[in-house]
Amino acid sequence: METYSLNIAYNGEPFCGFARQPGLLTVQGELEHALALVFRDEIETTCAGRTDSGVHARGQVVSFAVPDGAMEGRSPQRFLRSMNALTHDGIVVTCLERRPNDFSARFDARSREYRYFLYPHEAPPIFMEAFSWHVSGELDLDAMRAGAAHLIGEHDFKSFCMAASAEGRRTYRCVNEISLFGETTMGERLVVVKIVGNAFLHSMVRSIVGTLVAVGRGRRDPEWVASVLEARDRTAAGENAPAKGLVLWKVDY
Amino acid sequence: METYSLNIAYNGEPFCGFARQPGLLTVQGELEHALALVFRDEIETTCAGRTDSGVHARGQVVSFAVPDGAMEGRSPQRFLRSMNALTHDGIVVTCLERRPNDFSARFDARSREYRYFLYPHEAPPIFMEAFSWHVSGELDLDAMRAGAAHLIGEHDFKSFCMAASAEGRRTYRCVNEISLFGETTMGERLVVVKIVGNAFLHSMVRSIVGTLVAVGRGRRDPEWVASVLEARDRTAAGENAPAKGLVLWKVDY
Repeated sequence: METYSLNIAYNGEPFCGFARQPGLLTVQGELEHALALVFRDEIETTCAGRTDSGVHARGQVVSFAVPDGAMEGRSPQRFLRSMNALTHDGIVVTCLERRPNDFSARFDARSREYRYFLYPHEAPPIFMEAFSWHVSGELDLDAMRAGAAHLIGEHDFKSFCMAASAEGRRTYRCVNEISLFGETTMGERLVVVKIVGNAFLHSMVRSIVGTLVAVGRGRRDPEWVASVLEARDRTAAGENAPAKGLVLWKVDY
Repeated sequence: METYSLNIAYNGEPFCGFARQPGLLTVQGELEHALALVFRDEIETTCAGRTDSGVHARGQVVSFAVPDGAMEGRSPQRFLRSMNALTHDGIVVTCLERRPNDFSARFDARSREYRYFLYPHEAPPIFMEAFSWHVSGELDLDAMRAGAAHLIGEHDFKSFCMAASAEGRRTYRCVNEISLFGETTMGERLVVVKIVGNAFLHSMVRSIVGTLVAVGRGRRDPEWVASVLEARDRTAAGENAPAKGLVLWKVDY
């Protein structure tokens, strides 16, 4: 067998998440359907980060193995064109790479970067409506940064994990960076929350962002974030930030 | 009567253009409907630039007059909130301003700025799909700049005007600036064509962009743009660039 990886961007809106589910439109379902047509064979894929329904990706990575020689005679350009022609318009396959035979997009990822886009203004955005969370009013970014500082390093992030997914599993993860910065897109001033870590629990980024936004709105103080972490209890954290503001940005190997 | 202006942003996609048309969803129709509910009276609006179906705006300006005292007791904040609650979600009213009684958003505008977003890559964009023209392959920006230079200044732009609209009208306009620059939005590298002029003919920006893209793709050389201008004939110009990449960016008074 030979192993390859694909870089993939998608608009999460039309999809019921990344993971294949019978009868539902999913990113993995679309990719595997296209691979099956290209190789005339069932191909299983593994992704770097399973994104929930409505979550977007700019740099999702997916690996798959094909029989020796199956890629022969196909130029990468033509292969990408076929994949893009055979998948839903909301998906773009941007890159094909040969990998070592034992490569796994999931297990070999050293770090994952997510970006969350906030729109903190009275009136909602026009151009970024589909890719941001409209938080009416202002956000205190310094307070959010002070709150985020408590999350850097290796911790038990059980408070930031969907309860059902945490059951009986190890919930330690390492967060390397949480930074906040302004960015103007199509004339709309956004606040970007960039989060980098080795791996993430189910809904971890969205509950971290929801928690930091509670601090940014002045409803909680930055020290509250430390107490949420210590509680090891999902109900201690802030609300989940909506899926549409979240983008799986980049995966490093 | 007292005269006011509104600054307005909209996503052109759902609308049959700016101008009111019976039975169709239009930006002007939505605004006048909301103004009628707020003031319990029919209010006529005038805009800085009538945008076609599918064209977006970040800084459209609309003026209207109300009877003396009709605005009394309404805070601008509350007025904007009412307007945003009463209009389609694709419209955001961002600013209310008192103007001299004889002010017209159309006739007092000194210059108008449009921006056109191009996505010159093999695969289509994901995040900017609704707000850009996917031109597969690369564009020669220097050639486009050389072509654009022929259009700067006052000229008869009849070649860049929808034939029906040019009939029997003065088609001289003054273009002050056409600049091209790169911009990265949500990780997607776009080329922005910024066009500033005193006023524009019907479909003038879109036919200028279509003409410059023919040069950028190498199908025409930059001097061809001068011959298009001299022809004073719509059929001499390039194809109209699609509406979805165009944004009425800013109007100066």
